[in-house]
Amino acid sequence: MNNETIKVEGMSCEHCVKAVTNAVNALPGIGSVEVDLKSGTVKVEHDPSQSTLDKIKFEIEEQGYDIVS
Amino acid sequence: MNNETIKVEGMSCEHCVKAVTNAVNALPGIGSVEVDLKSGTVKVEHDPSQSTLDKIKFEIEEQGYDIVS
Repeated sequence: MNNETIKVEGMSCEHCVKAVTNAVNALPGIGSVEVDLKSGTVKVEHDPSQSTLDKIKFEIEEQGYDIVS
Repeated sequence: MNNETIKVEGMSCEHCVKAVTNAVNALPGIGSVEVDLKSGTVKVEHDPSQSTLDKIKFEIEEQGYDIVS
């Protein structure tokens, strides 16, 4: 499992937290997802052989948010 | 039908627009609901004999937002 912190722009409320959390959790090989609204970050524990970091970032963008880094 | 504009605090994104729109639309006697994020307002056309303004405001608060006026 790898731990990554993704910086995301545009998450503003608890609905956004849910949307991002559910979208990432739906991917295979996800250990945990933690969204922090204040810092605009998503902490993900993932198995990169099942879901790459790029795939996770893509999924967050699909929900309508921009990846900062 | 009466037209009312309700000032609401805390609506920040399209998820909020949907949550408020759906909650108000679920009430009886609602002609239309328009949420404007920039101004933080909800415009409602309603039949007051079916859903009073207070009932509509209560429903918006139930979604987690504060009524300003």
